[in-house]
Amino acid sequence: MEIVMAFQYLTNVPLEQAKKEYLELLVKNGMRGVPERIRVQDACGRVTACAVYAHICAPHYHASAMDGIAVQAGDTFGATQTTPVTLPPERYTVVDTGDPVPEHCDAVIMVEDLVKEEDGSVRLHDAAAPWQHIRQIGEDICAGEMILPAYTVVSPSAIGALLAGGVLELDVLKKPVVGIIPTGDEIILPTADPAPGDIIEFNSSIFSAMLREWGAEPLTFPIVPDRFDEIKAAVSEALSKCDIVILNAGSSAGREDYSAQVIRELGGVLYHGVAMKPGKPAILGYQGPKPVLGVPGYPVSGIIVIEQLLKPIIEAMTRRPVRQEETVRAQLSRPVVSGLKYEEFVRVRMGHVDGRLIATPLNRGSGVVSSFMKADGILVIPQGLEGHEAGSEVEIRLLRPKEELEHTLVAIGSHDPLLDELADLLHRGNAAYYMASTHTGSMGGIMAVRRRETHVAGIHLLDENDGTYNESYVRRYFPGGGVRLVECVGRTQGIMAEAGNPKQITGIESLASSDIRYVNRQKGSGTRILMDYLCKKHGLDTASIYGYEREEFTHTSVAAQIASGSADAGMGIYSAARMYGLAFIPVCTEQYDLLIPDSAWDTPFVQEMLEILRSREFAGKLEELGGYTLQSPGEVRCRF
Amino acid sequence: MEIVMAFQYLTNVPLEQAKKEYLELLVKNGMRGVPERIRVQDACGRVTACAVYAHICAPHYHASAMDGIAVQAGDTFGATQTTPVTLPPERYTVVDTGDPVPEHCDAVIMVEDLVKEEDGSVRLHDAAAPWQHIRQIGEDICAGEMILPAYTVVSPSAIGALLAGGVLELDVLKKPVVGIIPTGDEIILPTADPAPGDIIEFNSSIFSAMLREWGAEPLTFPIVPDRFDEIKAAVSEALSKCDIVILNAGSSAGREDYSAQVIRELGGVLYHGVAMKPGKPAILGYQGPKPVLGVPGYPVSGIIVIEQLLKPIIEAMTRRPVRQEETVRAQLSRPVVSGLKYEEFVRVRMGHVDGRLIATPLNRGSGVVSSFMKADGILVIPQGLEGHEAGSEVEIRLLRPKEELEHTLVAIGSHDPLLDELADLLHRGNAAYYMASTHTGSMGGIMAVRRRETHVAGIHLLDENDGTYNESYVRRYFPGGGVRLVECVGRTQGIMAEAGNPKQITGIESLASSDIRYVNRQKGSGTRILMDYLCKKHGLDTASIYGYEREEFTHTSVAAQIASGSADAGMGIYSAARMYGLAFIPVCTEQYDLLIPDSAWDTPFVQEMLEILRSREFAGKLEELGGYTLQSPGEVRCRF
Repeated sequence: MEIVMAFQYLTNVPLEQAKKEYLELLVKNGMRGVPERIRVQDACGRVTACAVYAHICAPHYHASAMDGIAVQAGDTFGATQTTPVTLPPERYTVVDTGDPVPEHCDAVIMVEDLVKEEDGSVRLHDAAAPWQHIRQIGEDICAGEMILPAYTVVSPSAIGALLAGGVLELDVLKKPVVGIIPTGDEIILPTADPAPGDIIEFNSSIFSAMLREWGAEPLTFPIVPDRFDEIKAAVSEALSKCDIVILNAGSSAGREDYSAQVIRELGGVLYHGVAMKPGKPAILGYQGPKPVLGVPGYPVSGIIVIEQLLKPIIEAMTRRPVRQEETVRAQLSRPVVSGLKYEEFVRVRMGHVDGRLIATPLNRGSGVVSSFMKADGILVIPQGLEGHEAGSEVEIRLLRPKEELEHTLVAIGSHDPLLDELADLLHRGNAAYYMASTHTGSMGGIMAVRRRETHVAGIHLLDENDGTYNESYVRRYFPGGGVRLVECVGRTQGIMAEAGNPKQITGIESLASSDIRYVNRQKGSGTRILMDYLCKKHGLDTASIYGYEREEFTHTSVAAQIASGSADAGMGIYSAARMYGLAFIPVCTEQYDLLIPDSAWDTPFVQEMLEILRSREFAGKLEELGGYTLQSPGEVRCRF
Repeated sequence: MEIVMAFQYLTNVPLEQAKKEYLELLVKNGMRGVPERIRVQDACGRVTACAVYAHICAPHYHASAMDGIAVQAGDTFGATQTTPVTLPPERYTVVDTGDPVPEHCDAVIMVEDLVKEEDGSVRLHDAAAPWQHIRQIGEDICAGEMILPAYTVVSPSAIGALLAGGVLELDVLKKPVVGIIPTGDEIILPTADPAPGDIIEFNSSIFSAMLREWGAEPLTFPIVPDRFDEIKAAVSEALSKCDIVILNAGSSAGREDYSAQVIRELGGVLYHGVAMKPGKPAILGYQGPKPVLGVPGYPVSGIIVIEQLLKPIIEAMTRRPVRQEETVRAQLSRPVVSGLKYEEFVRVRMGHVDGRLIATPLNRGSGVVSSFMKADGILVIPQGLEGHEAGSEVEIRLLRPKEELEHTLVAIGSHDPLLDELADLLHRGNAAYYMASTHTGSMGGIMAVRRRETHVAGIHLLDENDGTYNESYVRRYFPGGGVRLVECVGRTQGIMAEAGNPKQITGIESLASSDIRYVNRQKGSGTRILMDYLCKKHGLDTASIYGYEREEFTHTSVAAQIASGSADAGMGIYSAARMYGLAFIPVCTEQYDLLIPDSAWDTPFVQEMLEILRSREFAGKLEELGGYTLQSPGEVRCRF
């Protein structure tokens, strides 16, 4: 391998301009919706390609609207209570609802309004008005009438109206077929057992799902290695079969980047490089009227690029009504800094806490697909704006319905896998409730409660002076009270080590050895505070522990590092060690509690969560996880 | 045939009670969501049946986050601008973004930050921090972590997270299979050429589309004739194949009604008869945990019944989040009277006119499927309430997005097929604009403008005194001004008669003959006013015209009656006669104009409509329809 940089200068065209010019170019090149004829029964949700007219009337005959008899109204004129009219059998016909009214008849009399005589004639005490109780031809739809205009979404009841109007097939706009070409030498199909260096190709699955939601038809091609000719052949083939092509990865200006060149040779490139983040290296290419979009490899970049640049094109081709994006005003819990040179899309989590809607920016790494999954909304920071200060009110585009946010229990604080189980049980018990946890460590949880940003905070904070947990911290940080400390679980902390403990770690003292690579937790986490305390207690200089500055944010991620062999030891709870089959050297048992502000106490989901803490089902889940002890979970230990 | 009434007494249980008890009974009988295992790629929009955990970490190896070299951080300590460190080739490895970091390395240095020497070594002017530019194992997802809790809708990004976590399949809740059994001797499959008495079966197609939207899987069975044994066998078969059965039609207490008895024999009936309109004769039946719903035959009743009674059950089985129904406050343009004994569902059309949202009740006939298609919302009148007065503010459940209503041009007034073409052209030209016409006749249009309920009214009103059109009426009804009269078209009115004119109608005078059955337009329509005037002018007594009191609301429906043979003649415009291939005896040319209140003048869709009136495309459409003359369409004839 050689160190080479085939650097290409990317453009930095503003996103709105890029979108507009791209669409205009494609339309100019002849891009348009293509009609296809389908059965009416298959048309729900599809968009009409042209106006549809009724072929026949509905009803298509004069139908009785009642059970009774059909008569000629003239025969009944003069009938009253005192001067009834009697009709012989040949002057009336028995009809049921929906039956055709015989040609010579022009009124229906309900069965309740007549008296049947023994000789088969009927006696009437009321005259019939012409056309009474008859559904006349065309009452619902008249032949020749327009049932649906062009570019209209077909609804279930429109399907009924079309069939009633004798329309069996109609022209709708064809779903554009979008070819997706994954490229890259390291890319492999999804597997549960990848080798190091393999990169699981899941972008095409994400894009396919998005495209289907937008009314397009995805078609994923086999993975193409990073070779110019093969990529060119794949794009050529996709162009012959599809209306739109997505070339995934290889759109940055890195050394194995053939995308722009391939697209240029097969058609043209309007822009390579858009002033957006993530997604800057997007390639806006085309072959005649067909868009060929070069999409960066990182999933979050890819999602943003196809949403921003491809969705408007699909909307133009399918003529679906463009729904206004739902937005909310929310208050930023943290500052967000953005570059002046691009429009940035920041994923945020949101929570309704204490009467305010709070938005917290998520991990901005564009490789972190789970951050997109967890996002409740997108904060768009326009080009030319440096960001927002903490506390600013910002407009957020919603990724989840507003009502879900209103029913979401927000948990910010110390990590424990039991929080996920709690979230699962809460939502199982009541489909309207959700729980969203963010792992910031115990001190982060206390601060979030102080800043009124969370309904609950998991904390496990050791007071070095007396060996107690949590209470003294709460007292110190909430001198004015207003919070309750709720008992949750006792849990075992210890040193996690490679399975079989080959380095023969026996306790904290073993860690100050040059052949042991330690992985730590972040500052402010209860586990870090515990570790710092234990080192002090054992007279250990933390500088003598290799890797003490290497920080992870959860017990599981510490365990994952050890399991991968990139660290030999780390402090964490038993359940995490067990999850990864690691050796575990117990160090102490600590109290993990939940801190809940009074303002959240009476919310139905907090009360529901307390119920769950006390449930047998929750106890069972903890047993499965291992390393927990339960005394009286859900009880208020202290009210401050 | 015989006149028989096998009347069964129906219950009149309140709808909410019926819903609640039905669901409780089914759950008690064991109804529940059933898991099925599917590929992650197929899971978008499906609901997880249980919590899903990651199998592997993502990334599953330490991956370089940059193009550059991997090193051991310790080797670089001490490097500064003035004291560079040089690493020989064996102390570093070239890596690209995504490449695995070799086991002995714990930092990546970007290609931009190094200088390559001729001997293959690299010179560094900065120390590397341990773990810099490395995506550590589990940065995105840790093995063992819960990716999705139970009963969660799988999103596109969740698909990515699952695949990244090594999950290839997952358990989702199976889509309930809903068997639909259409019954009735007269029922036929959709056709463009039905015989009199045939009833086209389109309910199953409407229901199927609705069920698919709710996440269920419809399965329509062949049409079953009205025979007890055959219906019973069909329901039995459907129950063996489906989770839910809909038995369509035959649920009223009429004479050929076996539904309730069949369901009773195969399982049980909780209620037969619910206090709702439409939909009263619904049958809430079951076989163990499987709902068997008897649904009335009229399409609107059927739609309301399955939406009210079946949707909650499907929501319970599929655990999809129940979306809050979007509602708006609107002002009723007309009184709505409802019975005290039932909850009524009234379809309404809505329009944003002059700053208010106006709701107008539509045809309440439950056989009129087009009224459901045209409805913008549903007004629910609770049991025990007699209705609402005109002008009351009511809450309407939306059937169309609010933003569409805000962009809908409301046209109330005289009917002309050109209005549909106008609607088509308006929406084609700008996908955001819609047009909704209601046919109330010219005088109805004038009144709607006066009551500020419409943006535009088509009128063609003859002033008997001077033979002019429209102006004198507008002057009389808008003494304070505030409206503009816009020229639209000249059109030919005449007498429509059976093709070939077998009754040899030559003009108005021919109509006063006992062998000619006339069909009239409603009072207040311009065509009726014209006809009344012509009769007076010719000295004709309208009582001498057979059928003069038979009223239709549109030119096309008059034409449809004549084409069907149930009338011999009727007054109407040429385009309607031509549509039905009728004979046409021209009587006069009249001016059809558009009346537009000043308050609507500057709305973008009214301006767009005026553009269209002036367009060549519109002129072409009129040519196709026939019988129109154009002078300066879109010009303001008078401003009042």
